[in-house]
Amino acid sequence: MMKEIGKLDWAFSAGRIPFQSTGKEPEFISHDKIAVLNVSEEEALIEMVIFYENVKPVGTYSVKVQPKRVKKIRFNDLIDPEAMKLERNYSCYIKSNVKVVVQFSRMNTGSNYNAEMGSMAFPVET
Amino acid sequence: MMKEIGKLDWAFSAGRIPFQSTGKEPEFISHDKIAVLNVSEEEALIEMVIFYENVKPVGTYSVKVQPKRVKKIRFNDLIDPEAMKLERNYSCYIKSNVKVVVQFSRMNTGSNYNAEMGSMAFPVET
Amino acid sequence: MMKEIGKLDWAFSAGRIPFQSTGKEPEFISHDKIAVLNVSEEEALIEMVIFYENVKPVGTYSVKVQPKRVKKIRFNDLIDPEAMKLERNYSCYIKSNVKVVVQFSRMNTGSNYNAEMGSMAFPVET
Amino acid sequence: MMKEIGKLDWAFSAGRIPFQSTGKEPEFISHDKIAVLNVSEEEALIEMVIFYENVKPVGTYSVKVQPKRVKKIRFNDLIDPEAMKLERNYSCYIKSNVKVVVQFSRMNTGSNYNAEMGSMAFPVET
Repeated sequence: MMKEIGKLDWAFSAGRIPFQSTGKEPEFISHDKIAVLNVSEEEALIEMVIFYENVKPVGTYSVKVQPKRVKKIRFNDLIDPEAMKLERNYSCYIKSNVKVVVQFSRMNTGSNYNAEMGSMAFPVET
Repeated sequence: MMKEIGKLDWAFSAGRIPFQSTGKEPEFISHDKIAVLNVSEEEALIEMVIFYENVKPVGTYSVKVQPKRVKKIRFNDLIDPEAMKLERNYSCYIKSNVKVVVQFSRMNTGSNYNAEMGSMAFPVET
Repeated sequence: MMKEIGKLDWAFSAGRIPFQSTGKEPEFISHDKIAVLNVSEEEALIEMVIFYENVKPVGTYSVKVQPKRVKKIRFNDLIDPEAMKLERNYSCYIKSNVKVVVQFSRMNTGSNYNAEMGSMAFPVET
Repeated sequence: MMKEIGKLDWAFSAGRIPFQSTGKEPEFISHDKIAVLNVSEEEALIEMVIFYENVKPVGTYSVKVQPKRVKKIRFNDLIDPEAMKLERNYSCYIKSNVKVVVQFSRMNTGSNYNAEMGSMAFPVET
């Protein structure tokens, strides 16, 4: 019954990893992240391509999500094939081999400012 | 006319119940919640399964929503079959026997920080 | 080309009009609102029904949106057939005679707390 | 594989450019913006029409997004055919010649207040 939850293709466009942070580690440090839910019986292979404003896309970043598990992926932590750029506008295209549910959120605890925003990523029609 | 509002299956992936709270009870205490709208003439039986990062899914949590009513479900309050884990990333799959509208929101009033975020849960294609 | 933007039926479930407010009028006073965009050549008649947790639904609230205009509707301001209840969870079903785009947002400037959240209302399948 | 990401038509209704700002430039100044992702091999021509509450729609505002790039468009910066009005409710209809992904966000760092909200724009069915 829960085999077919979600979509194979996702994207969000308003990415930006905040540089400054006044929050305490690890819950309140500034970050951009996605939460990926895999309710299937199979391991999900998540492949991501990052798009920037003035340089070529970078990728593929690969992350695995175990069956019947959720995984939070912090963009700050992505380093292979290269570290994510801080304080740069970016977008992300996300492809999975099994259907997953993807939600995007950001916590911004920069100087004299704190906020949290979240939205579903956009399920791309295939 | 309002019999068919919403979907039978919903999911969100970016759950996390904040542990610390500086807000005054009950409006400003940290929480994760969903609001479930049932506009039908029948009682809705909501069944939820919770997915974590490193342990097996837990469920089924059951909640009823009366006809033509809304119900807010705080994840902090879910204790049967077991209490929800605090400060752990989780996802939730939500199944209803009648069509409902589900919206997810979080209030985070932890130390030196306050924020509120909200988004529609993702209506799963059946 | 812009005649058919949006949907006829919308709903959101996570309504709550904050009672306390520390913000300066009018931009920073606590509120729940929807913004309704009508790009058609005709006046849109918006009819809303409000659902609560423990009492019968209240409605119909009616608001008109002129052709090629946007209108923000603050739920605090709805008084006919009866004033909206403060600090009560509510949901809203929105029906229009012409296609419209509806976005829900909240500003919460209560004691020692400020936050803003927004999300698209859920376009109900007709 | 990434040629067909997104939609040709988008809209959001809850626009408002905050006037006051206490944040430091440029990251924390109040703004409304959209992030447009173009993963195609072609330049995207983005055409926007702005709708207000009491005056005629203004447009067309045109912005180009290079192939395989993201572009953030701050509404504060739109000046041709006329500067955007501050502190006025507005909505935006967005049309593109190639499929794009559009996400809307706002940062509000007005007096004694700061918040960030974001949501996907509404993909208009064509």
